[in-house]
Amino acid sequence: MLVYGKNVARDLLKKNKYIKKIIIQDNFDDKEIISLIEKNKISVKRCSKREIDHLCSGLHQGIILDIPDYKYHGFHDIIQNNEIDFVVLLDHLEDPHNLGAIIRTCEAAGVDALIIPKDRQVQLNATVMKTSVGTLDNVKIVSVSNLVNAIEKLKKEGFWIVGTCLENSVDYRKIDYGGKIALVIGNESVGISTLVQKKCDFLAKIPMYGKTNSLNASVAAGIMIYEIVRNRK
Amino acid sequence: MLVYGKNVARDLLKKNKYIKKIIIQDNFDDKEIISLIEKNKISVKRCSKREIDHLCSGLHQGIILDIPDYKYHGFHDIIQNNEIDFVVLLDHLEDPHNLGAIIRTCEAAGVDALIIPKDRQVQLNATVMKTSVGTLDNVKIVSVSNLVNAIEKLKKEGFWIVGTCLENSVDYRKIDYGGKIALVIGNESVGISTLVQKKCDFLAKIPMYGKTNSLNASVAAGIMIYEIVRNRK
Repeated sequence: MLVYGKNVARDLLKKNKYIKKIIIQDNFDDKEIISLIEKNKISVKRCSKREIDHLCSGLHQGIILDIPDYKYHGFHDIIQNNEIDFVVLLDHLEDPHNLGAIIRTCEAAGVDALIIPKDRQVQLNATVMKTSVGTLDNVKIVSVSNLVNAIEKLKKEGFWIVGTCLENSVDYRKIDYGGKIALVIGNESVGISTLVQKKCDFLAKIPMYGKTNSLNASVAAGIMIYEIVRNRK
Repeated sequence: MLVYGKNVARDLLKKNKYIKKIIIQDNFDDKEIISLIEKNKISVKRCSKREIDHLCSGLHQGIILDIPDYKYHGFHDIIQNNEIDFVVLLDHLEDPHNLGAIIRTCEAAGVDALIIPKDRQVQLNATVMKTSVGTLDNVKIVSVSNLVNAIEKLKKEGFWIVGTCLENSVDYRKIDYGGKIALVIGNESVGISTLVQKKCDFLAKIPMYGKTNSLNASVAAGIMIYEIVRNRK
């Protein structure tokens, strides 16, 4: 996986993460990063701006790193661990900025695992790496082929399933979040799928006082996650 | 100002907003949007993909619209309105996705005005328009040349100033948000400036249970705004 940008580079180099290769622009002159690269003895290729632009569509700041793909955690390893009692599931999110911000919130709030579907869902790419600002290592991310099956298994393990949606739902502050909680966050355009809604034990609504009734998915996730934390810690 | 993308186009056309000119890619074939353009009788220029790519670095989906720049509200008009009792100030945010998501949250939560500095702060650009998904019209946005002066004037009008930071701060759930509240959200990297911190009546901290202690600025804003709403509505 190619990731990019000075912050990401600095973070990976300081953590001594395995980096296959680094590509830097011929006039790259960040002294701290160059000295970290030399210290870690990583192979470097110098390229023109044009060649780097061709490899990466984001704001690369003259540095691209080739790192191993993220190794997802196994679903069964996660749920069979009895210490786990708060997980978040994403119902096919599309925006990498949202995924990155949600990973960051999960890390800050001490969520035990983040469960994402394999298909029709943004995966861990360079933008997610950048938006999650080094928190990826501290969150257990699980990839599942079927979200509804995963929810059913969580129910068998004693989890209460909480979804967020505007209709047929109750004020998010009125729900008792004691016990094992699995929070489902819906897709940016269509929300939680009907099938997933049917599996939910609670449907929560964040009250809206405007005209458009719309919150960004990562903001809604943040409000819900901290409401659950408030009931528990 | 150039804005882009099908959702933005559909929203502006449906609201009969004044659009100076529309540029579409020669093979653009979204029937709904084309019929809305014809209905609104807006001048259209067809271009090659290459020409459109040259005008816009984002995901334009074959349509760019030239609209008048956003007209900011006047600071004095806002604070002299006695009905206003909840404003949000941004202390030099850099990321347009954060600004867009915060505008959306302000709209949903019924925040009376959003106050942003003129300089060293991301302004209302195409990415902000896209991320705020049509909520811009329903939020009063004020541009000020000096944030500290604005805070002092708010204090004179009886506002309590609440800032967010990790040090010398109290749990955000322990603060009484009755009365007129002005919430300050800090920059993505450095947080709230020292000068602004000194002007705050309360410094609030969102508890962190992870290793990196970091929340995305728009997520932190969402959690704080809904905590204030909880105390008031």
